[in-house]
Amino acid sequence: MKKKIAVLPGDGIGREIASGAAAVLEAAGKRFGHEFEIEYAEIGGAAIDAHGTPLPDSTLELAKNSDAVLLGAVGGPKWDNLPSAQRPERGLLAIRKELGLFANLRPIPSFQKLVQSSPLKPEIAGNVNMLIVRELTGGLYFGKPSERRGENNEVVVDTLQYTRDEIERIVVKAFEFASGRSGRLTSVDKANVLESSRMWREIVNEKAADYPNVTVDHMYVDAAAMKLISSPGQFDVIVTENLFGDILSDEASMITGSLGMLPSASLSESGFGLYEPVHGSAPDIAGQNKANPLAMILSTALMLKYSLNMREEGEAIERAVQSVLNDGYCTSDLQMEGSTVVGTDQMIELVTKRV
Amino acid sequence: MKKKIAVLPGDGIGREIASGAAAVLEAAGKRFGHEFEIEYAEIGGAAIDAHGTPLPDSTLELAKNSDAVLLGAVGGPKWDNLPSAQRPERGLLAIRKELGLFANLRPIPSFQKLVQSSPLKPEIAGNVNMLIVRELTGGLYFGKPSERRGENNEVVVDTLQYTRDEIERIVVKAFEFASGRSGRLTSVDKANVLESSRMWREIVNEKAADYPNVTVDHMYVDAAAMKLISSPGQFDVIVTENLFGDILSDEASMITGSLGMLPSASLSESGFGLYEPVHGSAPDIAGQNKANPLAMILSTALMLKYSLNMREEGEAIERAVQSVLNDGYCTSDLQMEGSTVVGTDQMIELVTKRV
Ligand SMILES: CC(C)[C@H](C(=O)O)[C@@H](O)C(=O)O
Ligand SMILES: CC(C)[C@H](C(=O)O)[C@@H](O)C(=O)O
Repeated sequence: MKKKIAVLPGDGIGREIASGAAAVLEAAGKRFGHEFEIEYAEIGGAAIDAHGTPLPDSTLELAKNSDAVLLGAVGGPKWDNLPSAQRPERGLLAIRKELGLFANLRPIPSFQKLVQSSPLKPEIAGNVNMLIVRELTGGLYFGKPSERRGENNEVVVDTLQYTRDEIERIVVKAFEFASGRSGRLTSVDKANVLESSRMWREIVNEKAADYPNVTVDHMYVDAAAMKLISSPGQFDVIVTENLFGDILSDEASMITGSLGMLPSASLSESGFGLYEPVHGSAPDIAGQNKANPLAMILSTALMLKYSLNMREEGEAIERAVQSVLNDGYCTSDLQMEGSTVVGTDQMIELVTKRV
Repeated sequence: MKKKIAVLPGDGIGREIASGAAAVLEAAGKRFGHEFEIEYAEIGGAAIDAHGTPLPDSTLELAKNSDAVLLGAVGGPKWDNLPSAQRPERGLLAIRKELGLFANLRPIPSFQKLVQSSPLKPEIAGNVNMLIVRELTGGLYFGKPSERRGENNEVVVDTLQYTRDEIERIVVKAFEFASGRSGRLTSVDKANVLESSRMWREIVNEKAADYPNVTVDHMYVDAAAMKLISSPGQFDVIVTENLFGDILSDEASMITGSLGMLPSASLSESGFGLYEPVHGSAPDIAGQNKANPLAMILSTALMLKYSLNMREEGEAIERAVQSVLNDGYCTSDLQMEGSTVVGTDQMIELVTKRV
């Protein structure tokens, strides 16, 4: 098969790890007889520098004309003092909205080899395998009004808005994933305070009727923030709205002991998707061949599985990563006893060879 | 001195632990020569049963005519199916708003004896001493509109609203606490997305000029959710808006290994306050003499220190609790090696004797 992939390296270590994505795609293409045509474009700070805007039209066009999008990371101190409407993150928010990427998926497994890196006790961190499904194009992130008011701008307002359709489609997505996994779904809300959460909860209960094989459970967001630490092993699929998902998925990303290992997928209704590591652009280590490329490589594997219908190909990449870890190689962000620390390039090569 | 204290036991274990508050007040009164006049009233589910509303006028009147308020906990399965406007939690939200309790304070120390109960590794959990300052009467909890819209109610909206004054007073409170502690303040927001957070950040930066001895640091809420687990020892005072504070303070409450030990204070501008444990009403163990009364007792100590100007008295109670733990007594929610597990009543007696 021939597929066109847009690669948006972004800023900081995004630029180094993007080459990891390209390398494993080439390897997977060779092994399975596909052709991946890669085209690069700018987003975030790099796009501000080159085109004066964090999401140039040309980048958006390229993304729309591709079969899937890979993104490195955006942001850095260079652009921190720009007015908020012009910052690198705006590029990320805009591309999510423009491409209708409403479903953000973050799988959080335990990596047995890395359990020591977790701040949690090994008996708690070792037993985790959850998928967080976060709504990505609604809620407080996009609701209007979001403004200052009053004679002296002394009042400020943001709006948490959802339509029934927006809630339904993410909830259905989560039920689908839950029924393909262990059949447990936890819906997280703040229904004791928010009207939007009450509607969310009603819709989850309605949809539950269509998935008799899925057990649903409602949890308040504050309780979920506790349970993610005290008993993360209890969760299978978690579904929640945009801001709760932002907070909880970042919290949960600490469980495994390495942010540098976590991929994410953001899907539209058609199954089209943008894939990116959970970690940021890490300006402090950018350009030093220190960055861990595995989250980017695992994001590439997710892309093959979710958007390109290449399950076997994606799993081959995941197995290659596992095998490199099992052989005791890691990057400097990971703590593995008796391991060999390698740089970004060498890690990419180690994985590529095993695909 | 003579002080009038309103005690609102609420529901579930709230009813058992409230007697712990009364007992230590009596002991502290005897030792330091004060008279604490205690008057009881209902709130939450118990108030719904007795008066048809979670916050009866008589309860509110009593609170207003007291020097301070102690609250047990509210809620339970009996009231879970009531329409949301009539639930036990509404009593809590209403009393906060009616009394103008805008500043919620949650101190989170490490208890050396309890470090083993934490889901975090001891080297991470053992080194914590933070104070979370949460805004409690604004934001998404109270903003209007909070409603369904459209022909078929297919749109739902909640409103995150703050006035400049509301942000200023909580920020000033946090600076005051930070300058009396180690001088480090972390302000948590989501300024890369929310207009309200951008105003919050501006105000923090303005007020910083008045506190040259305090080092201020801004952190996004998602990053804070990570750091609270990976390096909680880095925080001293954290200040944040209502909903972020709800989530982060519950997350942080897991660090110490026992929710059953954590008190909270909610203060108005005059310094008047309501004091309650961080834990809930725990219907599953209510009435079994199993509940840990220490959070309630430590809330009483906070009340003496913050609202009644009785620092020495409050510290005497805190030392009494410490000494009971040091002598190896605990309730069944705690995991302490080689300890003697006691019931609620016996724990109250052990502490009271040492005040
Ligand atoms: C950069 C920021 C706007 C973004 C978000 O909050 O969605 C990020 O935290 C994420 O989770 O991808
Ligand atoms: C019961 C609920 C409304 C309340 C809140 O969200 O404020 C509780 O979680 C708390 O933190 O005191």
